[in-house]
Amino acid sequence: MKDQFYNYIQQLQDTITAKLESVDGKAKFQENLWQRPEGGGGRTRVIQNGNVFEKGGVNISAVHGELPKSMQHYFGVGNVDFFACGLSLVIHPKNPFVPTVHANWRYFEMYDKEGQIVDQWFGGGQDLTPYYLFDEDAKHFHSVCKRACDTHNPEFYPTYKKRCDEYFWNAHRNEARGVGGLFFDYCKQTDTMHMEDWYQFVTEVGDSFLEAYVPIVNRRKDLDYSQVQRDWQEIRRGRYVEFNLVHDKGTLFGLRTNGRIESILMSLPPHVQWRYDHQAEKGSEEERLIKVLMEPKQWV
Amino acid sequence: MKDQFYNYIQQLQDTITAKLESVDGKAKFQENLWQRPEGGGGRTRVIQNGNVFEKGGVNISAVHGELPKSMQHYFGVGNVDFFACGLSLVIHPKNPFVPTVHANWRYFEMYDKEGQIVDQWFGGGQDLTPYYLFDEDAKHFHSVCKRACDTHNPEFYPTYKKRCDEYFWNAHRNEARGVGGLFFDYCKQTDTMHMEDWYQFVTEVGDSFLEAYVPIVNRRKDLDYSQVQRDWQEIRRGRYVEFNLVHDKGTLFGLRTNGRIESILMSLPPHVQWRYDHQAEKGSEEERLIKVLMEPKQWV
Repeated sequence: MKDQFYNYIQQLQDTITAKLESVDGKAKFQENLWQRPEGGGGRTRVIQNGNVFEKGGVNISAVHGELPKSMQHYFGVGNVDFFACGLSLVIHPKNPFVPTVHANWRYFEMYDKEGQIVDQWFGGGQDLTPYYLFDEDAKHFHSVCKRACDTHNPEFYPTYKKRCDEYFWNAHRNEARGVGGLFFDYCKQTDTMHMEDWYQFVTEVGDSFLEAYVPIVNRRKDLDYSQVQRDWQEIRRGRYVEFNLVHDKGTLFGLRTNGRIESILMSLPPHVQWRYDHQAEKGSEEERLIKVLMEPKQWV
Repeated sequence: MKDQFYNYIQQLQDTITAKLESVDGKAKFQENLWQRPEGGGGRTRVIQNGNVFEKGGVNISAVHGELPKSMQHYFGVGNVDFFACGLSLVIHPKNPFVPTVHANWRYFEMYDKEGQIVDQWFGGGQDLTPYYLFDEDAKHFHSVCKRACDTHNPEFYPTYKKRCDEYFWNAHRNEARGVGGLFFDYCKQTDTMHMEDWYQFVTEVGDSFLEAYVPIVNRRKDLDYSQVQRDWQEIRRGRYVEFNLVHDKGTLFGLRTNGRIESILMSLPPHVQWRYDHQAEKGSEEERLIKVLMEPKQWV
């Protein structure tokens, strides 16, 4: 399963980076291969200063070895070996009307001293962070997520949509990071879902990513915007940074397993602002966004 | 002691904000009083868009009530009442040749069910974060710190200088946040240091702040700088954000005790950049700074 899934994410990285380059029309992804001293490594691909994409990364990694102490504590296990691989992407467009997007699909194995698998699971998801809210964009993104889920189990979309809203919650701000999407973790073998079924589900979500995001980019990338709207985007990107550095378990996992810092923190936006006590104007589009973020909606 | 120290930090806030306004010559501190639902509150003063200071806060707070669960765990105590007050300041100047400065002086009490003090201590410090390194500035800052310490105990400066280097360590970057200064915590009553002696020590450090920082500001605030130097400052400010959101216990304490978010996060810089895998040029001033941050120096 680990080879099958690692092959899949390698191909998916190629597909996604090729498509995003063609949408951008100017910038190309810069590739860095890296090795983790304790075992494994990754292929980082970053795009910067494009026509459409100001900064973004579409990274894969496969790491293995002894599970670090802090992760043993986190998973509540002893001194075991592990393997983890995944694709992580974050795209920060230049135009404030184009939402930021994040996606991640990952697979994890733990072994006993004889090298037998004692636990294995998939995880992942994809979620959208608009700076200005076009309801039709949120609906489109969620529709594609729902369609990818529904083939496998009609409960998946409502369950994983809810988990996404719960996970990407900026607790100290009392608001969601964005308008959500899907989030699932610890997808383990059951009587009805074998690992191969989970593989089919996770890869169907992975395959849906470009369809979920690219039409939104194309609709919004050429809209005119003002400096005030750009400032708002940079201020809201500050919330994105706060989530990723204070709350995000993926970032924490990367830091704790001695992943490559620049690959982990590629998720941070290129230009960010923090203004003291900045408030959206009453009745404005900016205020409407905040209200939706404070009470996640059903989009489909 | 709590009244005595709270009076002190109220006056120190007035002294510091008045002096910084006079150095800036344009912007004024904006004051916000806030109340904590569970008990206490604070007086936040923030300056923005000045001639010299792009963003900064000089805040006092005094909070009390039941110690929140997460802090009970942190301190290794049960369900107790607490009182905490302190002054926290972070100043982000506009000119990349003027360092960012941070300082904090605080006092903490814990009570048993009868309201008797069962534990009490002071903590605090001050530290400097340059974007371009002028050795004489680091030496000046540390000399003032040392002088404030030496009257009380010749061991204080070397001990608290070292703790500062250890505390403001951006572990995931393998570098210090800045060139350090002083950091002390859990300053409790001993045979040779009564709480009144600690009070004298902590207030002497507090009184030394303006002398430690303002001459540096005055020397550097009118130097010409290029866009490249400004970009470098904004990129390095990214490291400041990373430290405060990933590692800083003060920020964590604020978030865990339900402090006022905008007062806690006033420490975040106004404009920040993250570029993928940005490296300082070989032999440049930027590279020299990084080398010093990777191996903290003795400045006096």
